[in-house]
Amino acid sequence: MTTGSFEGVLAPVLTPFKADLSPDTERFVAFCHWLVDQGIDGLAAFGTTSEANSQSIEERMALLEAAIEGGVPAAKFMPGTGCCALTDSVRATEHAVKLGCGGVLMLPPFYYKGMTDEGLHSAFSEVIQRVGDDRLKIYLYHIPPQAQVDISLELIEMLVKDYPDTVVGLKDSSGDWSNTQAVIDAFPGFDVFPGSEVFLLDGLRAGGVGCITATGNANPAGIRKVFENWEGDQADDLQAAITATRKIIQARPMVPALKAILAHYHDDPSWATVRPPMVTLDAEARAGLIANLEADGFTIAPRRLEDAAE
Amino acid sequence: MTTGSFEGVLAPVLTPFKADLSPDTERFVAFCHWLVDQGIDGLAAFGTTSEANSQSIEERMALLEAAIEGGVPAAKFMPGTGCCALTDSVRATEHAVKLGCGGVLMLPPFYYKGMTDEGLHSAFSEVIQRVGDDRLKIYLYHIPPQAQVDISLELIEMLVKDYPDTVVGLKDSSGDWSNTQAVIDAFPGFDVFPGSEVFLLDGLRAGGVGCITATGNANPAGIRKVFENWEGDQADDLQAAITATRKIIQARPMVPALKAILAHYHDDPSWATVRPPMVTLDAEARAGLIANLEADGFTIAPRRLEDAAE
Repeated sequence: MTTGSFEGVLAPVLTPFKADLSPDTERFVAFCHWLVDQGIDGLAAFGTTSEANSQSIEERMALLEAAIEGGVPAAKFMPGTGCCALTDSVRATEHAVKLGCGGVLMLPPFYYKGMTDEGLHSAFSEVIQRVGDDRLKIYLYHIPPQAQVDISLELIEMLVKDYPDTVVGLKDSSGDWSNTQAVIDAFPGFDVFPGSEVFLLDGLRAGGVGCITATGNANPAGIRKVFENWEGDQADDLQAAITATRKIIQARPMVPALKAILAHYHDDPSWATVRPPMVTLDAEARAGLIANLEADGFTIAPRRLEDAAE
Repeated sequence: MTTGSFEGVLAPVLTPFKADLSPDTERFVAFCHWLVDQGIDGLAAFGTTSEANSQSIEERMALLEAAIEGGVPAAKFMPGTGCCALTDSVRATEHAVKLGCGGVLMLPPFYYKGMTDEGLHSAFSEVIQRVGDDRLKIYLYHIPPQAQVDISLELIEMLVKDYPDTVVGLKDSSGDWSNTQAVIDAFPGFDVFPGSEVFLLDGLRAGGVGCITATGNANPAGIRKVFENWEGDQADDLQAAITATRKIIQARPMVPALKAILAHYHDDPSWATVRPPMVTLDAEARAGLIANLEADGFTIAPRRLEDAAE
């Protein structure tokens, strides 16, 4: 049972860019629909994989509005709204709540390092109090490799104690299973999502509620199959298969690799575009990635027919 | 000789906040004037010490406009305009150039870690090309302890080669003198500012052009004295004095300590306010800081008379 409204497999939606590096709204909306069609349980748009932090909050808010206006259910969204600046976090979070998003995934303010749990608690508290809306459901975003600012067990405890109906879960992208396990064990009813499908089955068996994973953008159906069958006889085999696919993809820089996969399998070269400071995969890396995926038997559903004319 | 328009002692201007944590525009403008009155050579507003990354770019731009409208010379400003998002960096940089700022201090995009020099070069290039203004003078901001993204020698070389009239200097807040020395040696005519007055005299002797230092907010006259007399007999003694003062201040969290100093010596308690995730010094830490400064013989000029009525 989950406390919040999400469980299962969530994808940090890739953001397509046009040649001039502006967000490609049409492709974004179509891609959100495609992910939902593939069985994705939630759209963690504007996460690390979404190159969210390479976009202004205005750009992110415009994409979110377009997707919801374009018929993607607002409740499916768990957009990233945690910024360095208090005022930006408040603005993006308020916007998401007003649009009816099911929750938000919130980074700690990540520029200043070595801050205390007291200071981080105060940062989250200010956002919660300024938004001041009972509909707000926050999933804390622990991703030390990028943010270099931790969401410690002590911080979670302080926040859950003060805001039990608002701070309802966590995405753990530490890559450290012992931390995921510790959070699950320490906070029953708190919705913990490992940040990689590599830990999906272990997470579900331990009391987690799913996963939020970059590769959900490329292998949504495969990952979803583990979630659907996690109590069945095939669970370990299914898990082994998605772990193998994950390892092929993450052998390259993750975001450019995922975009290269979409560009190739959806026959849509513009998907390869990334914003600096990321760089696209070169031809050799692309060819190696696709060859490895072919050898693995990787498949991906075609893009939606109605998008084919774009 | 400098290539850009700055040399000497620059302060990353502290940002005063009101009780509701909004920027205190009046105190900010008055404080910029006070720093200039104290002999500060440039105002590196919206740096790390300014809690810039806890503010939206709209908040920063409004403060900058207010200061310039309030009579602080635009050419004295070297505002921080490097953001995670390309579009934010372009917007803030364009704004600074249009206002007539003497330069900008530019962080690399700092969310994504492990980016290549090629990717970082592309990020700076996009900003330079989109701003597209010959007046733009960029000082690269190397601060690995916070940004966790380096400005390497290779990256500087690429940027200086492509944009020799635009990329004119660097602030080195690595705290690693060997890196500062290496940059000075590798790029003659490139304006290097150590990020701490501890390295001011060494920097000037090696070919640097000054320093950009947090404690310029509290000890501007003392630090300026080293710059004025760096070729004189007293230089080493003067340097030893400012290094001693620095060590007292940095024994506490730097920004709250500097704000506590202003609150105390300018008899203006509201200066102590910081934005989360920072926390103000507690009473004991404040008392210890002031006691240590008193024992050191620390002095600071009073705030401007015209501000006394505020």
